[in-house]
Amino acid sequence: MTTDDDIMDATFAALCKHGYADLTMQSIADEFDKSKSLLHYHYDSKEDLIVTFLDHLLENFLDEFENDSDADPLAQLQWMAEIVVGADEEGTDDIHVALLGLRAQGPYDGAIREQLVRNDRHIRDLIADLVRTGIEQGQFREDIDPEQFAALFRSAIEGAQSHEVILGEEAPTAVAIAGIEELLLDELLVDEAREGPTA
Amino acid sequence: MTTDDDIMDATFAALCKHGYADLTMQSIADEFDKSKSLLHYHYDSKEDLIVTFLDHLLENFLDEFENDSDADPLAQLQWMAEIVVGADEEGTDDIHVALLGLRAQGPYDGAIREQLVRNDRHIRDLIADLVRTGIEQGQFREDIDPEQFAALFRSAIEGAQSHEVILGEEAPTAVAIAGIEELLLDELLVDEAREGPTA
Repeated sequence: MTTDDDIMDATFAALCKHGYADLTMQSIADEFDKSKSLLHYHYDSKEDLIVTFLDHLLENFLDEFENDSDADPLAQLQWMAEIVVGADEEGTDDIHVALLGLRAQGPYDGAIREQLVRNDRHIRDLIADLVRTGIEQGQFREDIDPEQFAALFRSAIEGAQSHEVILGEEAPTAVAIAGIEELLLDELLVDEAREGPTA
Repeated sequence: MTTDDDIMDATFAALCKHGYADLTMQSIADEFDKSKSLLHYHYDSKEDLIVTFLDHLLENFLDEFENDSDADPLAQLQWMAEIVVGADEEGTDDIHVALLGLRAQGPYDGAIREQLVRNDRHIRDLIADLVRTGIEQGQFREDIDPEQFAALFRSAIEGAQSHEVILGEEAPTAVAIAGIEELLLDELLVDEAREGPTA
């Protein structure tokens, strides 16, 4: 692993442990095996480090998906919903709690907001491209606007993630995921491909 | 206005001004015209007051909607999306920023989480009831599961509100609202009532 990878891992661990509000450069250094001075050499401030961390999260996220002529766009979108809502994944709650606190900084911190805007745009572009691929493959309806679907799908999966984190065990996550699958993803399909009853 | 109403107004004003993280009983007292001791007489702590405030927000929110045999459920759901996403409303951003910070307390504060769970349940119940009314009136498709739709719709509108607050001017709010209207609400309608092209 490179030093950069180690720093990102230390940031991830410190965020999970302390949340964003209580995160300090020292708490990240405490999770870092190499010389602490290396950390300060690479990053001037916590904000600086967090912006890089958000970019690193985006890259890891985008790496999870493939969008080529062999891809199954429906399966890719289902997979995205599972990763983002992440109710069943062991240990995702800590990082999602930390990300909620971090996103709540958006209104107050220009550099963090700018990176969050970049992440949002890349993720919506990926969703819209998957929808376009599905339309080209004849699996998805031609009258679906890929940009509209991307904004709606992203709002829905992020909203469900937030509810899971905020409301805990009482969150309606299972029914929200069922709604995403049956009312959003299933509606993408051309009639012949749909499982549900058609009106 | 009753003292309770005055206290809720003072809490609203203080939240808009300071956000949740910097909210203190004193900052609320500063917005309160009557005797400060009244405030402390009514509420033991900031947490106590915030739980009541969340309940008051819920009541005001539910009062915006009607669901009886004369109601137009589609118009009511459109109205809800507009209120919650609230991109055009003057001055909604401050309270939405404050609510984001407040919701981010959910994982750390049991009393606030409990009230947020109550609010979530009541709002989803209202959405599901509107869907049932639409089905009974013959406007909405019978194969829509009201609970699934409620969880999905609520995730989508809250997700779009969060993006609006977090990302600011770069938020994809207009396209998200278009997606909510054309891909979620329009899909509720039985075929004869739909405006868009049908597959």
